[in-house]
Amino acid sequence: MLSFACDYMEGAHPAILRRLAEINLDKNTGYGLDPYSNQARQLIRQACGNDQADVHLLVGGTQTNTIIIDAMLRHNEGILAANSGHINVHEAGAIEACGHKVIGMPAQLGKVDIDALERHLATVTAEFNAVGWEHYVIPRALYISLPTEFGTLYTLAELRRLRALCDQYDLYLFVDGARLGYGLMSPSCDVTLQDLAKLVDVFYIGGTKVGALFGEAVVVTNPAIRLTRGLIKSHGALLAKGWLLGVQFATLMSDGLYWDIARNAVDQAMRLRQGMVDKGYELYIDSPTNQQFFVLPNDHVAALQQSVGIDIIEAADDRHTVIRLCTSWATTSQQIDQLLANI
Amino acid sequence: MLSFACDYMEGAHPAILRRLAEINLDKNTGYGLDPYSNQARQLIRQACGNDQADVHLLVGGTQTNTIIIDAMLRHNEGILAANSGHINVHEAGAIEACGHKVIGMPAQLGKVDIDALERHLATVTAEFNAVGWEHYVIPRALYISLPTEFGTLYTLAELRRLRALCDQYDLYLFVDGARLGYGLMSPSCDVTLQDLAKLVDVFYIGGTKVGALFGEAVVVTNPAIRLTRGLIKSHGALLAKGWLLGVQFATLMSDGLYWDIARNAVDQAMRLRQGMVDKGYELYIDSPTNQQFFVLPNDHVAALQQSVGIDIIEAADDRHTVIRLCTSWATTSQQIDQLLANI
Amino acid sequence: MLSFACDYMEGAHPAILRRLAEINLDKNTGYGLDPYSNQARQLIRQACGNDQADVHLLVGGTQTNTIIIDAMLRHNEGILAANSGHINVHEAGAIEACGHKVIGMPAQLGKVDIDALERHLATVTAEFNAVGWEHYVIPRALYISLPTEFGTLYTLAELRRLRALCDQYDLYLFVDGARLGYGLMSPSCDVTLQDLAKLVDVFYIGGTKVGALFGEAVVVTNPAIRLTRGLIKSHGALLAKGWLLGVQFATLMSDGLYWDIARNAVDQAMRLRQGMVDKGYELYIDSPTNQQFFVLPNDHVAALQQSVGIDIIEAADDRHTVIRLCTSWATTSQQIDQLLANI
Amino acid sequence: MLSFACDYMEGAHPAILRRLAEINLDKNTGYGLDPYSNQARQLIRQACGNDQADVHLLVGGTQTNTIIIDAMLRHNEGILAANSGHINVHEAGAIEACGHKVIGMPAQLGKVDIDALERHLATVTAEFNAVGWEHYVIPRALYISLPTEFGTLYTLAELRRLRALCDQYDLYLFVDGARLGYGLMSPSCDVTLQDLAKLVDVFYIGGTKVGALFGEAVVVTNPAIRLTRGLIKSHGALLAKGWLLGVQFATLMSDGLYWDIARNAVDQAMRLRQGMVDKGYELYIDSPTNQQFFVLPNDHVAALQQSVGIDIIEAADDRHTVIRLCTSWATTSQQIDQLLANI
Repeated sequence: MLSFACDYMEGAHPAILRRLAEINLDKNTGYGLDPYSNQARQLIRQACGNDQADVHLLVGGTQTNTIIIDAMLRHNEGILAANSGHINVHEAGAIEACGHKVIGMPAQLGKVDIDALERHLATVTAEFNAVGWEHYVIPRALYISLPTEFGTLYTLAELRRLRALCDQYDLYLFVDGARLGYGLMSPSCDVTLQDLAKLVDVFYIGGTKVGALFGEAVVVTNPAIRLTRGLIKSHGALLAKGWLLGVQFATLMSDGLYWDIARNAVDQAMRLRQGMVDKGYELYIDSPTNQQFFVLPNDHVAALQQSVGIDIIEAADDRHTVIRLCTSWATTSQQIDQLLANI
Repeated sequence: MLSFACDYMEGAHPAILRRLAEINLDKNTGYGLDPYSNQARQLIRQACGNDQADVHLLVGGTQTNTIIIDAMLRHNEGILAANSGHINVHEAGAIEACGHKVIGMPAQLGKVDIDALERHLATVTAEFNAVGWEHYVIPRALYISLPTEFGTLYTLAELRRLRALCDQYDLYLFVDGARLGYGLMSPSCDVTLQDLAKLVDVFYIGGTKVGALFGEAVVVTNPAIRLTRGLIKSHGALLAKGWLLGVQFATLMSDGLYWDIARNAVDQAMRLRQGMVDKGYELYIDSPTNQQFFVLPNDHVAALQQSVGIDIIEAADDRHTVIRLCTSWATTSQQIDQLLANI
Repeated sequence: MLSFACDYMEGAHPAILRRLAEINLDKNTGYGLDPYSNQARQLIRQACGNDQADVHLLVGGTQTNTIIIDAMLRHNEGILAANSGHINVHEAGAIEACGHKVIGMPAQLGKVDIDALERHLATVTAEFNAVGWEHYVIPRALYISLPTEFGTLYTLAELRRLRALCDQYDLYLFVDGARLGYGLMSPSCDVTLQDLAKLVDVFYIGGTKVGALFGEAVVVTNPAIRLTRGLIKSHGALLAKGWLLGVQFATLMSDGLYWDIARNAVDQAMRLRQGMVDKGYELYIDSPTNQQFFVLPNDHVAALQQSVGIDIIEAADDRHTVIRLCTSWATTSQQIDQLLANI
Repeated sequence: MLSFACDYMEGAHPAILRRLAEINLDKNTGYGLDPYSNQARQLIRQACGNDQADVHLLVGGTQTNTIIIDAMLRHNEGILAANSGHINVHEAGAIEACGHKVIGMPAQLGKVDIDALERHLATVTAEFNAVGWEHYVIPRALYISLPTEFGTLYTLAELRRLRALCDQYDLYLFVDGARLGYGLMSPSCDVTLQDLAKLVDVFYIGGTKVGALFGEAVVVTNPAIRLTRGLIKSHGALLAKGWLLGVQFATLMSDGLYWDIARNAVDQAMRLRQGMVDKGYELYIDSPTNQQFFVLPNDHVAALQQSVGIDIIEAADDRHTVIRLCTSWATTSQQIDQLLANI
């Protein structure tokens, strides 16, 4: 069945499956010490324009978020995040299970409200100075997602402002890039991968949602963050057959494949969006990336669900529903046409 | 210097010091297995009207909150609390350090907004049912404080409504009673200790702020909460000389001492409040317990601080400040007179 | 290069890669709720002869051990294991990172010494009863591996004795089956999968080392062990594209494929072993499974390493070295011939 | 009843109770920011001959061990300790509950076997270098107790050797001084407090067992160990009425009171020991401190228990039992006479 319910419903780009089949019976070294993983890490450092960056290939998003945060924080320190941030709402307490508090911040369409964040930091710093820092969870890092859970983007100017705030208040800046390709390849995005590598302390390049079977490539640019292989293992996250990650990221990072297939998802999303607008549907969020949100009459939703997988977000009012439609690296023009014909 | 800055600035009721001195050189059994601790637990069970309750004597509030919550929750479960609740803002991440998320709820003057809570539970239950509970921190307990951090009280009707909500959504109801005496002894309070023991799954009778050198007496009425001595020890909280806790609570729980000295604090607070109102000062919160909050002109605050310890809460506006004045079991009429004369 | 260094150097059985390629562009439901995962779980329950068993598909061994143990233990409880057990020595503290103590027991060739275990349990029970259980880590589970890290096997009689001990001392019995196929398919093994499902509370069928790209299938037969999807997610271990695990285990569990390819590894190991013995080399351990240990003169080791990957265990004496040679599901007769020719 | 069962059966030195009573109704600042705590920390720094040391006053031993270890280790690091060490056997898993592995080492009469420790470090370092450190719990600290749980002492030469080993292998050296006074005041001890402050990275001066109601004074000499007030609070261990600890340690550290009363315990232990030897009883351990261990015929034990509290250690053989008799700061000559008369 046609489905736009989420962006991790397909396997991997065929080039990855081909490479995995080619080396399937070779004897590979385990735990990410193989040549493919070395190559992937090197390609990622090059793409980031930072040959000193520490790169680690992990399996999934929740795991990756947990390990990065565990590497940054002590028990009396916390991480600021948009109230709607993935680590605050969709990870079953994985961050807290590991001993760290997520401090929710006001947000608009997935983006942390920077003015509110600035006021919060000023206020709590004054309060903590007055009463004694030892009674509070000390903000020590800021988590943002790019693009956000609502498909929106931070501008380069906003990222710079966040960097300045993090410098002022001694916070690490961490970017969850589970959908990084779908953000950076948006025509509306004025941030480059190299900008990111310069401006933030740690981020990751999401593979699971962008062409890989699974995998997230963590890039640590600030050596004060001790994200070591031992820490990864202590989280049960050092994959025995690490070359599976190496092959995937080496393939994706070669010849711009990752960026090309990410751009396809955005292009298809833009077609989908235009098609829906042309049909008179209301945009719920003005998203420039692969996740598109619309407000539909309830009976249109019910009809659509007969033939297309969609994601129901919430009731807009008694007679309308907010839905999400995602494209992915694998979405074809034909699928968009088919969707628009069905609606 | 005269001080009303908080309610844990004095040592213990003299009767406690006398008892500790009397038995000081006796040979006592350790770890709370002594006769004084047994007597204290028995007196508490009697006062609660529940001879099956499991009673544990612990040292301090943060420790007690952490252990109770750890006994109730698994890693993917969380505890709901007012945004202003002590566990959410003043415990340096102790709950999260132990692996559990605090889920902040809208609150008014320290009290969780029950309507908002009810809406939240209905909404997330629907959402979790739709998407799958495994992605979320599942609410499994509700934390309230009685009185709250702002001196306010839940009515018996409100407690019953919370109990019903907890039953409906399968939540434990936990009452932080760090200042329990100052709540139950308020003339405005229609809740009794026995009500509490019937309505909630676990609560504690605070000693640190109400006549003891230190100590919190936990009362577990729901046997599904396995708050064992071993779990306490694994939190580093099984006091070697447990009889120090036993003697204190046995003394406080004998002949109503705890309640008598708690009532004194409330009585003195009411005199303080009336005196301030008579002088024309504005109440910031209409608190019926030992914590009183006023709005004062900034110059009055500065003058007052010359001779009296007070707690600055926040700026009310450019020219006024919110202050807190606490009475305690040890506050005398003379101290109130002196304060009112100084202002 | 020829290598027998370990048993997870190849990818997956070709039938798995074929199936993954076939469904690669289908739209699959995430998080293990897809039809392939359902089928895999059903096939596993059937093979175990227990249609009530709770089956979960996880990615890797350390992660699996951590989650199972976290589901069984509270903070003041521990898990007994052979001193040489994987959870005690090779997991970078993952079990402790999660809050649980591993209690090392004397072992012989990887197998826990059952007599020593029995004495230990009798002794500590007496000691704990005398002094109070709250001061100790209470043994609450027993971990064994089948086959062990040294390739050895427990007999059915030994398993039954362990079960009886676990019943007597109220312990969960947990079997790490990372190499389960290589154990159960050994001609020396008198334990069946159905025996295991009857005798132990939880175990897993290892895929990573036996034909899968990755994956461990956990079988929980004791419903008191609450290994839920939420707990898995809170460990960062709920794979987004869960069908990758489902397809792998559905393939392996169909038509006995898992057992057939496991038997191949054991058959090749027996040929390797006989060949080495025929050449006059000393067995270090009399292993009936896919891991074989030999004592070789140091110069033979050096020569061998020129053309074959091997695993150095330790110095036997000044002039001899203990080495390990592993076969796997992918090992061919030709590779064994080639090894024996090279030595 | 006369009792020598342990050394924390009495309250506090009377001078402490007097001081607590004197200031009982004063208004004191909370959380250890009071003048008494400042004075205590200053006196301790002076006694240690290190005016840069970071001193913290905590409530109990398990809590103190947990916090110190949590300040030193990451999740994939562990702490070496004698198999018989308190953190390995008597703390209900508190260290592991906090995420850290205790690595047991062979020991003799409570002292870690330094030769075995050295061999272990050499062996595992070689092994970890060969295989990759990420698979192992990395030893990062060494725990010893002074005196040990068996009353024995490390010599200055042994401490220096341990320091050198810790330097060589990059380990923190941590001394549990729950009974520190009873060690340093032994005539057999050639280690001074100032030696300790020079040789180890962190240690504590035990109050609970040596004259205080409760309390352990942690001395951190290595600033790389970030044992902050915030970390303490996140462990639920920042006592609200911190001056209770301040007054106790200020009293104990004034005019050598701590050392004088500790010496009394050792003197009485030496009299007890001589008396027992004179009566023909066998020493089980040749302990130079306040814990004395004897082998008694079973019927003598039974008779003694009628009138004296003692600690049964274990059966020596079918007809003999090992017992422990402890003196404390409060033990009088008269009590020793009475004991010897009773036996």
